[in-house]
Amino acid sequence: MSKLRVAVLGAKGRIGAEAVRAVEAADDMELVAALGRGDKLETLADTGAQAVVELTTPASVMGNLDFCIRHGIHAVVGTTGWTDERLAQLTTWLDGSPETGVLIAPNFSIGAVLTMKFAEQAARYFESVEVIELHHPHKVDAPSGTATRTAQLIGAARERAGMAAQPDGTTTALDGARGAQVDGVPVHSIRLRGLLAHQEVLLGGEGETLTIRHDSLHHSSFMPGILLGTRRVVNTPGLTFGLEHFLDLN
Amino acid sequence: MSKLRVAVLGAKGRIGAEAVRAVEAADDMELVAALGRGDKLETLADTGAQAVVELTTPASVMGNLDFCIRHGIHAVVGTTGWTDERLAQLTTWLDGSPETGVLIAPNFSIGAVLTMKFAEQAARYFESVEVIELHHPHKVDAPSGTATRTAQLIGAARERAGMAAQPDGTTTALDGARGAQVDGVPVHSIRLRGLLAHQEVLLGGEGETLTIRHDSLHHSSFMPGILLGTRRVVNTPGLTFGLEHFLDLN
Amino acid sequence: MSKLRVAVLGAKGRIGAEAVRAVEAADDMELVAALGRGDKLETLADTGAQAVVELTTPASVMGNLDFCIRHGIHAVVGTTGWTDERLAQLTTWLDGSPETGVLIAPNFSIGAVLTMKFAEQAARYFESVEVIELHHPHKVDAPSGTATRTAQLIGAARERAGMAAQPDGTTTALDGARGAQVDGVPVHSIRLRGLLAHQEVLLGGEGETLTIRHDSLHHSSFMPGILLGTRRVVNTPGLTFGLEHFLDLN
Amino acid sequence: MSKLRVAVLGAKGRIGAEAVRAVEAADDMELVAALGRGDKLETLADTGAQAVVELTTPASVMGNLDFCIRHGIHAVVGTTGWTDERLAQLTTWLDGSPETGVLIAPNFSIGAVLTMKFAEQAARYFESVEVIELHHPHKVDAPSGTATRTAQLIGAARERAGMAAQPDGTTTALDGARGAQVDGVPVHSIRLRGLLAHQEVLLGGEGETLTIRHDSLHHSSFMPGILLGTRRVVNTPGLTFGLEHFLDLN
Repeated sequence: MSKLRVAVLGAKGRIGAEAVRAVEAADDMELVAALGRGDKLETLADTGAQAVVELTTPASVMGNLDFCIRHGIHAVVGTTGWTDERLAQLTTWLDGSPETGVLIAPNFSIGAVLTMKFAEQAARYFESVEVIELHHPHKVDAPSGTATRTAQLIGAARERAGMAAQPDGTTTALDGARGAQVDGVPVHSIRLRGLLAHQEVLLGGEGETLTIRHDSLHHSSFMPGILLGTRRVVNTPGLTFGLEHFLDLN
Repeated sequence: MSKLRVAVLGAKGRIGAEAVRAVEAADDMELVAALGRGDKLETLADTGAQAVVELTTPASVMGNLDFCIRHGIHAVVGTTGWTDERLAQLTTWLDGSPETGVLIAPNFSIGAVLTMKFAEQAARYFESVEVIELHHPHKVDAPSGTATRTAQLIGAARERAGMAAQPDGTTTALDGARGAQVDGVPVHSIRLRGLLAHQEVLLGGEGETLTIRHDSLHHSSFMPGILLGTRRVVNTPGLTFGLEHFLDLN
Repeated sequence: MSKLRVAVLGAKGRIGAEAVRAVEAADDMELVAALGRGDKLETLADTGAQAVVELTTPASVMGNLDFCIRHGIHAVVGTTGWTDERLAQLTTWLDGSPETGVLIAPNFSIGAVLTMKFAEQAARYFESVEVIELHHPHKVDAPSGTATRTAQLIGAARERAGMAAQPDGTTTALDGARGAQVDGVPVHSIRLRGLLAHQEVLLGGEGETLTIRHDSLHHSSFMPGILLGTRRVVNTPGLTFGLEHFLDLN
Repeated sequence: MSKLRVAVLGAKGRIGAEAVRAVEAADDMELVAALGRGDKLETLADTGAQAVVELTTPASVMGNLDFCIRHGIHAVVGTTGWTDERLAQLTTWLDGSPETGVLIAPNFSIGAVLTMKFAEQAARYFESVEVIELHHPHKVDAPSGTATRTAQLIGAARERAGMAAQPDGTTTALDGARGAQVDGVPVHSIRLRGLLAHQEVLLGGEGETLTIRHDSLHHSSFMPGILLGTRRVVNTPGLTFGLEHFLDLN
């Protein structure tokens, strides 16, 4: 079987360098280019890249994807900053190249994606649900983007199922004790030296609780998702948003 | 909306008595009979029961279901001891009453059922997986039936996905340290005063882990599953085995 | 060896009734009286009680202890509502009966007491520390009294060790995300159907974390502490505040 | 205040290099030498080192300590392979240099040391106790040395307190399900991709459990213990075995 010809854009960054190593180590892939800032995109066409892993910056990503789509090169994109306008532009470009696939993923950690998916699926079966996210103390935002997204998915699932507000008999509380409210779901942010990125969803019903916990202990946790996305995007024309669409959950 | 007319068989047992209370407390159900050992099954027909919750013994269950199916009464069954012969008999009876539904569930805890389902879904995405089950010290079997079933589901999912054996560099071990092997999945049994019934599935991949944990703190945890099963069985003709088929996981 | 003659005051309450059973079941104790509201205290003297377990109300406790101390009966007290005035009064009474011992314990759960003690001991060795407490949704206060006390002990230990404020790079936060502040320690309160009373202290340092977790799954968890307190109070004249003073931690 | 003059032996190894950086970063220390294989020990005397951090090999450690003790240089030792003979030799050398201190520590992680200490202290108050250790799948031994040591400390504490065997009603078990037995304490070893080094001690009593968990997420977790040991060894003449003796737990 011939190997998939893959290039990495943003190859000098920390995640990009890790992606270069991951592609090199994959049995079914061949690394044909590893481009950094200032390198010419023409290299992608010259080397016959079939797919790119795009890990650059919001300032560069649109130009890179324009080039890829025009040349029929599939793309797996980790760069952030997606607005409705940008997504509309991307869709227009893809309409003109109907066999090309682009995957944009806010999170390439399969564990994080499954945590969100399972929390959303379980939400309707439990009266109570709260989210705890735990990170290193250098993090500037609280809650994390992943925790906020998780709470939103849970809140929407509860609403679709017509569930009542969560039971909470609290009458006296210190400010902040009951966490932040995101779409009716309390979210608690822990900042602790020694941690990297962790999240726990606690669901409670009559006589039982279900806990789904994701621990990210190294940023290499993004690699399996990037490789899985690359293998799938070449057979998935058009725009896919979110790695969860490439997971088989049956 | 008229209420669903529900009877409980085995109403004097611990779980049965709890089921009686749960049916009484449900807004959309009416308890029409609560039968114990020696009570007459004709009461079910006389009271117009539409569904029964069957929580008796392997010695009584077949007679009870024969009566119910002949009278077009749907059944939710928690009694154990199901053999291929018994299931075949049940199917034959149901063929003669094509609008009647029977749900047999080895476990009515929604949390336990979701834990198994999620573990099975996640299994193919993680190189490593082990199961820890934790129970009170009076438990006579190790591992628990639920843990064994969970490991079997995981093992089958790994095999379907063509996964290699789990990585394990152990060369020197004390007997028992690495747990029991169930279909290639290590299972560890903890027995601790103060616990009731708990299970944890640990999945590990490059740089990350995913943990799914179920804690059963009271046997009332079976009630939401029994009520959900009752609501669904009346619209699900034929035999359904396992509560998971009544959960909407999309 | 002769058995210790023990009486229970408040024997009709939920915890009191459990204490009656626990004393009866203890090999080294004999239950000589179980008094409820309206029963005469003279029974304590008549039955030769050597120690009482006092589980009544703030309105009754002082009268009961006055009687006990005057009769040289040792007391283990779970009743709450202790003010400086009440403690001063108690000390005065005990000065007049120098061989009598009284133990007042805000918490008889040995697990809860050890959690506090260990958290206090470990505090000076970790840059970061946060407290999560998790309870059933009927609880009216947040954080729990135990969590507040734990955070205060940690905060005082950090101050004694001359530690700096905890590292926290948060610049953007939703209200409540970072919890309540108690003496410089963030405390987070979870309220979840299915839970009883649980607490987790998370300590983090360079490259590692230490977690101390207490799960109370049944109110019978108070009994071992009540029995231990009763055995020790008869040999510990004067006032002791807190079960931790009766634990040997070396 | 003048800074403590510290040298690192074994400075080219992974932990040694980390120790060099940690000493350099410490406000109260000055790194005066960083010696690797083949470098001359005389440098220690020439640079006026007051303390060394010894992170070499069992083949080198005795020669290094002989030199240090003869020159009155205190030592903190992470090298393993200590036999009774070696310790006796060390004691003889220290007798001849009564002001010099040597600390040998099998584990410099403060979290791991506290976990063992707390488990030992709590052991006598809980009927049930089991140990779970979790490591990356390259680990060759099961259980880990730390878990074995923890179980031994717990077993000894239970014996000192005259406790009965743990309650365990198991009558039917798969081989290995109940773990390895170490001095009456079941120990379970998990091997999971994505993990580094983790340990959990579960203690259970009537109605409650206490869990002490240590997570080592990076080998930098040894540095705070090495620095603490260095600061204390200069004021602690003679031989100290185990970092726990330098922790203030009151």
